[in-house]
Amino acid sequence: MLPAAPITKTQRVRIDLGDRSYDIDIGADLIGRSETFADVPRASTGVIVTNEVVAPLYLSTLRGALQSRHERVLNVVLPDGESHKQWLTLQTIFDHLLEAGCDRKTVLYALGGGVVGDMTGFAAACYMRGVSFVQVPTTLLAQVDSSVGGKTGINHPMGKNMIGAFHQPLKVVCDLDVLRSLPDREFSAGMAEIIKYGPIADMAFLDWIEDNIDALMLRDPMSLAHAVRRSCEIKAQVVGADERESGVRAVLNFGHTFGHAIEAGMGYGAWLHGEAVGCGMVMAARLSQALGLVDAAFVTRLNTLVKRAGLPVVAPVLDPSRNADRYLELMRVDKKAEAGEIRFVLIDPPGHASLRPASDAVVADVIARSCQPA
Amino acid sequence: MLPAAPITKTQRVRIDLGDRSYDIDIGADLIGRSETFADVPRASTGVIVTNEVVAPLYLSTLRGALQSRHERVLNVVLPDGESHKQWLTLQTIFDHLLEAGCDRKTVLYALGGGVVGDMTGFAAACYMRGVSFVQVPTTLLAQVDSSVGGKTGINHPMGKNMIGAFHQPLKVVCDLDVLRSLPDREFSAGMAEIIKYGPIADMAFLDWIEDNIDALMLRDPMSLAHAVRRSCEIKAQVVGADERESGVRAVLNFGHTFGHAIEAGMGYGAWLHGEAVGCGMVMAARLSQALGLVDAAFVTRLNTLVKRAGLPVVAPVLDPSRNADRYLELMRVDKKAEAGEIRFVLIDPPGHASLRPASDAVVADVIARSCQPA
Repeated sequence: MLPAAPITKTQRVRIDLGDRSYDIDIGADLIGRSETFADVPRASTGVIVTNEVVAPLYLSTLRGALQSRHERVLNVVLPDGESHKQWLTLQTIFDHLLEAGCDRKTVLYALGGGVVGDMTGFAAACYMRGVSFVQVPTTLLAQVDSSVGGKTGINHPMGKNMIGAFHQPLKVVCDLDVLRSLPDREFSAGMAEIIKYGPIADMAFLDWIEDNIDALMLRDPMSLAHAVRRSCEIKAQVVGADERESGVRAVLNFGHTFGHAIEAGMGYGAWLHGEAVGCGMVMAARLSQALGLVDAAFVTRLNTLVKRAGLPVVAPVLDPSRNADRYLELMRVDKKAEAGEIRFVLIDPPGHASLRPASDAVVADVIARSCQPA
Repeated sequence: MLPAAPITKTQRVRIDLGDRSYDIDIGADLIGRSETFADVPRASTGVIVTNEVVAPLYLSTLRGALQSRHERVLNVVLPDGESHKQWLTLQTIFDHLLEAGCDRKTVLYALGGGVVGDMTGFAAACYMRGVSFVQVPTTLLAQVDSSVGGKTGINHPMGKNMIGAFHQPLKVVCDLDVLRSLPDREFSAGMAEIIKYGPIADMAFLDWIEDNIDALMLRDPMSLAHAVRRSCEIKAQVVGADERESGVRAVLNFGHTFGHAIEAGMGYGAWLHGEAVGCGMVMAARLSQALGLVDAAFVTRLNTLVKRAGLPVVAPVLDPSRNADRYLELMRVDKKAEAGEIRFVLIDPPGHASLRPASDAVVADVIARSCQPA
């Protein structure tokens, strides 16, 4: 078992991207302290973008910490949910910024989960062709996933995250205290991405998660601090080698090809992203097994851990009359597809992932088996 | 007088931006030849984005040249005009790309003027977080302005180009033959940006333009080739020193602060961008004079040349009851403004520009004088 660093001290993960480098701070009681934001430029205006669920919980706390950094701190409160991750909501942010006369030095703060982070980041990428932003992720998923990588964007009726930009934050603040208010279902969704880092990069980390899954599910701060830090480190390592996702970075999408099909097929918001990824990982592991890359024990092990994290492991039927075809259709518009060929992130061997195509027949069989309760 | 290079040979201006470097090819009969596009990657899909005015003239010519580069060449024909430079039109491009199953390797071709170029470039910047695009500018303005710098974007009801990205093209093809079909008014609009490069960077070039203004207005290819090349070279020099417009690059906006106010105040499309810039340059020269930076002779000289290029030199009254206030109000939301302070690009001395604030009273006086026929 790896030692978890003590929670009292804020931990820092450096994301090394040349002149776009930034730090992720991980610790307790961060968002209410002005020192947390000491390295953010003293722009005249700071704008907190959040949603109607998070605003009552943390908006005034963050506002308080930012008062000393900016002459005025404005806020934009968006509706909650993945269904609002679209142009009209983005337009709301632009309207606010322009009405308030925000200039190019304005700093945006994304206070919320992945949806708020992706939209705020994309707004920052596009407003006056680019302003700075700080990520303050309030969900476990956002802390371990969207806080590293600079991916921002919105959905299109024909596909998730189809419109977006790579735009790195000035810094990321992962306050572990805010995870206490997270609903169980959302907490589990975050666990999916933490578990993900094991099979694709670090089986010792998977061992550690298995050993600490009970403490993690009880939201023990010391266990969480380690899980968040190690997840960010692994993601940083992968992203550092491939900032613009031309190759190796795609391994981070383990479980996402099936997962995106589930999300799109069920209608965005029906399944949480992390739930779809959790189930998608089990499906991708099964596909890896079907291609002879991993053994049945590995699939069972992953299935068990995903289940213990409170995540679904039985895939939904998207269309009773042509279920596999529907999955395949949805996966073919995935951004990783090339000229219509789906490239799956497969485990080969455990602790390492690679991109490969697979025949429709084999994939269809995996889908059929995954839709049946084990 | 500088020698104009012979038109028979295609001239190339290299835009040096590290791994985002690209070439601008300037010459006759370029868009119909497949050799022109020999260095574009052989992606399975190429998509020509153009508008309903340009399509009947050059779409089939460009399609022909691209057939050998891509397995399929698709096209998206947008409505014409600045008023369509907005999200809904951009959405049309995304819809086409997704419906056609375009992947990340897809290459977009912007065939048209600045509006098509800005929107296609922004679509390329955002589609799946970034695909490649080639600029094929069909207006003089687009050839000497938007072909260098990587600025892309759309308008917002509250301001021009407020939403956008920096996204460099793979290459730019300036075919001088296509300028023959350009309406006089649009040709003049392009001349505004050519003239601009003199006062801000190269007074010898201004001398050359004055000596050759008649040939240029007759669209003499050899004169045009020199004017386009030299304009691109100067812009490249400035942009190379400041890709993201943090400082020195702003000098390229000489005439644009007043110009944007004219465009916004009259309603986008009433004045062409180049017309507003032409008039705006005379206003900015007058402001430079008011601050003691240039003499009256310089203002007269610029005024005369702008007029000979067929451009307006008398500024429009935007609001009879509070004209100067309306101008100032519109200029305060300019992207170059900082915390509400307008920064003007002023000539100081001729051949060099710098950014400075100016008191509202002095600016108001310049506006009042500029709105009266000389």
